[in-house]
Amino acid sequence: MQVTLVDRRNFHLFQPLLYQVATGVLSPANIAAPLRWIVERQANCEVLLGEVQSIDVTGRRVLVDGAALTYDTLIVAAGAHYSYFGHPEWEQLAPGLKTIENATEIRRRLLIAFELAERETDIVRRRMLLTFVIVGGGPTGVEMAGALAEIARHSLKHEFRHIDPADAQIVLVEAGERVLSSYPSDLSEKAQRSLERLGVTVRTRTMVADVAADHVVVNWGGGSERLPTQTVVWAAGVEASPLAKSLAAATGATIDRAGRLIVERDLSLPNHPEIFVLGDMANYSHQTGQPLPGVAPVAIQQGRFVAKLITNRLRGRSIPTFHYRELGNMATIGRSAAVADFGKLRFSGFVAWMLWLVVHLMNLVSFRNRLLVFIQWGWNYVTYDRSARLITGPPDAGAPTGSPSIELASPRSTEPPADNVT
Amino acid sequence: MQVTLVDRRNFHLFQPLLYQVATGVLSPANIAAPLRWIVERQANCEVLLGEVQSIDVTGRRVLVDGAALTYDTLIVAAGAHYSYFGHPEWEQLAPGLKTIENATEIRRRLLIAFELAERETDIVRRRMLLTFVIVGGGPTGVEMAGALAEIARHSLKHEFRHIDPADAQIVLVEAGERVLSSYPSDLSEKAQRSLERLGVTVRTRTMVADVAADHVVVNWGGGSERLPTQTVVWAAGVEASPLAKSLAAATGATIDRAGRLIVERDLSLPNHPEIFVLGDMANYSHQTGQPLPGVAPVAIQQGRFVAKLITNRLRGRSIPTFHYRELGNMATIGRSAAVADFGKLRFSGFVAWMLWLVVHLMNLVSFRNRLLVFIQWGWNYVTYDRSARLITGPPDAGAPTGSPSIELASPRSTEPPADNVT
Repeated sequence: MQVTLVDRRNFHLFQPLLYQVATGVLSPANIAAPLRWIVERQANCEVLLGEVQSIDVTGRRVLVDGAALTYDTLIVAAGAHYSYFGHPEWEQLAPGLKTIENATEIRRRLLIAFELAERETDIVRRRMLLTFVIVGGGPTGVEMAGALAEIARHSLKHEFRHIDPADAQIVLVEAGERVLSSYPSDLSEKAQRSLERLGVTVRTRTMVADVAADHVVVNWGGGSERLPTQTVVWAAGVEASPLAKSLAAATGATIDRAGRLIVERDLSLPNHPEIFVLGDMANYSHQTGQPLPGVAPVAIQQGRFVAKLITNRLRGRSIPTFHYRELGNMATIGRSAAVADFGKLRFSGFVAWMLWLVVHLMNLVSFRNRLLVFIQWGWNYVTYDRSARLITGPPDAGAPTGSPSIELASPRSTEPPADNVT
Repeated sequence: MQVTLVDRRNFHLFQPLLYQVATGVLSPANIAAPLRWIVERQANCEVLLGEVQSIDVTGRRVLVDGAALTYDTLIVAAGAHYSYFGHPEWEQLAPGLKTIENATEIRRRLLIAFELAERETDIVRRRMLLTFVIVGGGPTGVEMAGALAEIARHSLKHEFRHIDPADAQIVLVEAGERVLSSYPSDLSEKAQRSLERLGVTVRTRTMVADVAADHVVVNWGGGSERLPTQTVVWAAGVEASPLAKSLAAATGATIDRAGRLIVERDLSLPNHPEIFVLGDMANYSHQTGQPLPGVAPVAIQQGRFVAKLITNRLRGRSIPTFHYRELGNMATIGRSAAVADFGKLRFSGFVAWMLWLVVHLMNLVSFRNRLLVFIQWGWNYVTYDRSARLITGPPDAGAPTGSPSIELASPRSTEPPADNVT
């Protein structure tokens, strides 16, 4: 059996910790592992860096950057991205948290906002610069808001001379009734209280109506409000990869409102037992009547299941049905506060936080990364020091790397300048 | 006394280790420390993120992004950059190693070259992709060449299925007679032999005549040669920041051929005891008759001297002359091989390498970074694993982050597709 792994990126990214890159705790390489390194010792597996352009379902071929790869079995796990409710123009102003580049761009915007506020003499503009809006009250938005509050209240506390970073206003906007809506309601409440203790303003039942360069407009039961801000992080409206639509068109499979493909009990497409769809692209509702959530444990278990199914098929056996074992849900809010739900057991506070650390640590792919992340977490916990907070980026993005153009105010003259002896 | 630190970047960068970011051993944050964090506890110091537009020498004001800062004493240490011998158009094709963005861009080009070679069926193009040229035989070029050879021969060895990365040809081009020309000649020789043992082709007395997208042209005693390559790293032709020219125009000071300002014995400008110029921008020849080299220890000692001089002036005392204490020179070539010159004592091989590690480690600004770098070096040494090798960058630079555009080869029909039951 020969396995070809195709990806547009050369590394596997542990997305749950992206928000820590965005808030300067971790470096990108801490949560990423090169694909070739992961499968290095697996002789039957090769990696192809490239972008899928089309899938020829009848001919069983995938076109990758002009080269055709034939397959017997195809597994598609192209994930999901953030959608902007029909406003793709908002993406530029309000980046999501899906890729490494997203995370470093958000990091850049966060830090630049404080830098600009430090130099800003106009009070109104300064208020705008020190207001941060996070859209989406799921785990990503909640963790991002908590981490941002911690930066403002602790990490940056002594570093500015003209502003107090603790004055930063952090607003978490959630359209539904509560944050962490997929968790039990008492844990949602605990999470919201933790956020508010950190100084985050939680606005539930509030929807974003518009995003502009220096403000957002939100609608809620009582009306409409304009929030002056230039730093918006988008963590709402998840939509499956467009590959899903294409596969639906080619195979006759159905997609749901979020663009996910509705899959069979063994994760294959209807009438196409040779095509499997996993992870955030798939809608698997056979177990509970509701689609499984788009979280890492689901994708991991589905991947293992399909691998087992395929090897069984080659031996003439079959495992007809995928069954997800839910281990639990967790979210962390700042330090020492978290919520964890394991069904019968629920935790909050410090215990939940320790559990969260361990689970996430063990899910990092390489031991080296686990060690480095463990140390950086330990360092951050003791010192509040978030030392991965570099402002990086291309020259036009505000981190100039070219030589400055200099004009001199004093004209050149042949007389020596006035003598200044102290 | 009030101190204002102005910089275009929000972090201090330890440049000697940039080549390790470029070859995927370290992450950018490992060799950078946020400026605000460094001076956090220093109450009389503030940081301003901005670009100097002009210096009004008569009025003693600096214009930074539109705001005027008045000074009693001005210290300028804007460094140097790589020059391309009158060919600025080469910079896009052959990046230097001065900034974080340089390093991650070089990293991207190196890794992409191997990825493209893996898929390349044309032998001639593959040879071109697997040829890497480094221009400049100083410490930067030598260390870069050694690290690149190690990647190709060891780190990537098992990761590709259609190419053998060890086939990579690495060429180090040096215009002078020997590499590391500022070191004693026996150490230059040792360094060259170490490089050649690693499989690097060292071309001394060779100059770059042209740089194109898929080749470089080099001239040497015997003629001219075209080297097919698409990955060129530039580590030659250092030139001082343009601020030097402007200051020379405004104060009447002289600049040398490399654009450096010729400074007095106390590092001030002639007739301007209130303006100091340090580091790579300064030409200090009073000690040996030759300008001090543009290396970190020189800049560090100059900084300390000027700080002492200024505090002494405030007390009515003076220290007239700067004196550089040369501690030694070091360069490392791959692992376990290095050369170190401490005047009477010289080392090569493993001992030199250990010394190099310790000296560079202790020069990193923060303890956290020392710990992280120490661990990553240890890991790399034991496993050859260079796990910070992510291909990152904006979408048009070859690491696409947008959604793929999909066209399906099979037309949609109302008939169900042929049934494929295994």
